[in-house]
Amino acid sequence: MTTTPRIHVAPVVGDEMRAAIEAGGGAVVDDPGAADGVIWTVPFHPEELTALLEKSPARWIQLPFAGIESFFAAGTIDPERTWTCAKGIYGPACAEHALALMLAAARCLPQHARQRAWRPGGFGSPERRMAGTTAVVVGAGGIGRALIEMLAPLDVRIIAINRSGRTVAGAGRTETAAALTKVLPEADWVVVTAASTAETRHVFDKTALAAMKPDAWIVNVARGALIDTDALVEVLASGSIGGAALDVTDPEPLPEDHPLWRFDNVLITPHVANTWDMAVPDLVALIERNVRSFAADGPLEGLVDPALGY
Amino acid sequence: MTTTPRIHVAPVVGDEMRAAIEAGGGAVVDDPGAADGVIWTVPFHPEELTALLEKSPARWIQLPFAGIESFFAAGTIDPERTWTCAKGIYGPACAEHALALMLAAARCLPQHARQRAWRPGGFGSPERRMAGTTAVVVGAGGIGRALIEMLAPLDVRIIAINRSGRTVAGAGRTETAAALTKVLPEADWVVVTAASTAETRHVFDKTALAAMKPDAWIVNVARGALIDTDALVEVLASGSIGGAALDVTDPEPLPEDHPLWRFDNVLITPHVANTWDMAVPDLVALIERNVRSFAADGPLEGLVDPALGY
Repeated sequence: MTTTPRIHVAPVVGDEMRAAIEAGGGAVVDDPGAADGVIWTVPFHPEELTALLEKSPARWIQLPFAGIESFFAAGTIDPERTWTCAKGIYGPACAEHALALMLAAARCLPQHARQRAWRPGGFGSPERRMAGTTAVVVGAGGIGRALIEMLAPLDVRIIAINRSGRTVAGAGRTETAAALTKVLPEADWVVVTAASTAETRHVFDKTALAAMKPDAWIVNVARGALIDTDALVEVLASGSIGGAALDVTDPEPLPEDHPLWRFDNVLITPHVANTWDMAVPDLVALIERNVRSFAADGPLEGLVDPALGY
Repeated sequence: MTTTPRIHVAPVVGDEMRAAIEAGGGAVVDDPGAADGVIWTVPFHPEELTALLEKSPARWIQLPFAGIESFFAAGTIDPERTWTCAKGIYGPACAEHALALMLAAARCLPQHARQRAWRPGGFGSPERRMAGTTAVVVGAGGIGRALIEMLAPLDVRIIAINRSGRTVAGAGRTETAAALTKVLPEADWVVVTAASTAETRHVFDKTALAAMKPDAWIVNVARGALIDTDALVEVLASGSIGGAALDVTDPEPLPEDHPLWRFDNVLITPHVANTWDMAVPDLVALIERNVRSFAADGPLEGLVDPALGY
């Protein structure tokens, strides 16, 4: 390893990024053909990255976000090189959004926000306490773990779902993905935080959604593809679930004439759980750490596992 | 003390209330003239309670909610008797609502809920992280203390305000009410959780509101009278604060033509931080405990201090 790794940044390099690379002991180079590492700064255009890498001997590629399924789909991710992404570091930002959506559902905030008139509650008012309810947290990566910590003082019982069923800290119980439909009837809140892979596509299909309680909400801060949108529209139309709060949709952006916009018990936010403005400070700090490790042949954070697809 | 205190319940006694009184070792009596204690089950009609007490030798009166300013205003609260209210026990329910409103403000949920169309974020999207922000929590009773616990895993810096300035657990700093206007410029979130008294009326006047940062939100889950509504409308109209999330208003209910309904950065919920359905289990448990203590001449929970007015 050169003591000063040469890092090419594309498609855009900002001052903050350049400063982070230099603070980590690297040098920014304009020519990808002379680069030891490449930092790709946007979560899209995998085909442009593929073209760039054909001209580059770079051994390490850093992607900027956690959801990198489009880079796998495009065949960009080449197992001969070392790939890292930003998985984990945005967990707390996205978990805050998941918590906001859960509380908004519990307290009927979408309905109140749209009403713009005082409708007194009285007996039978639909707002709910979080305390004493049960959340099924699907995926126990950075988002899921941060959310479980945030739910602790709210006295919410947690059932975590992961691939292995290996106990997740703070969860009352951990189950494998295979047990999902079995545990869904216990959930007041189903929070989707898992990576989008071939395995997780439409994990919330008609059968899974039908297993939810009539007052349970589904909250998605992961990827739209984890939920079968048509099946979701069906359970909402039939009233067999309580509602849906979605920061991600399939298709995305959601077209203006899509039936999901019409339900009173649906809240949609336009993929803002972790905005660019929130992400930049965390990303820049990760890049500084990873450049420093790369220079020292140390372990890199956020290693992509091509076999798992994230 | 009789070993079985005779308790009159008015204006209505439900099965749950009767069961709690009996579980606490008391007996429900129909005649207030034969009662050792009176439980008043609605948060209004103080004049009816005054009339009832004229015919009753009851030494102890239990009120059902924490905000009892209307009973003081009506002169119902007679310092010759022992008065208790439900202060403290609804703290976690109201704190959940305050947290829901804060997160809704941070994540622009009122605006997203009303938009019903996908407006992508991109750079400069207005959603905010909670982590690293500062909340000024005005009043450190049951609601304030529960809220401070809920904010801990969100990495929010807390400045608590109380009458004494005595350190509040979990707050980074505690200040007296006199320092309010001095600390307001530090706040990203101003959360009003204090009791409504002569002293706290319009504590958020023009001067206090003018001390807030241009992106700071005020959240009120206490009582409408703590904020000068006209002054609030003024700072919202001039854009000198970020927004307001209000579960209580002055006047309340807020009339349909009130200017507060017209701001995009205002979220109003109709006094549902602690609904009847949420309150009943906590209230019934309190009554059982207080009847048991009353029978044993023990200390009662939620003692009203007529000098303080709550």
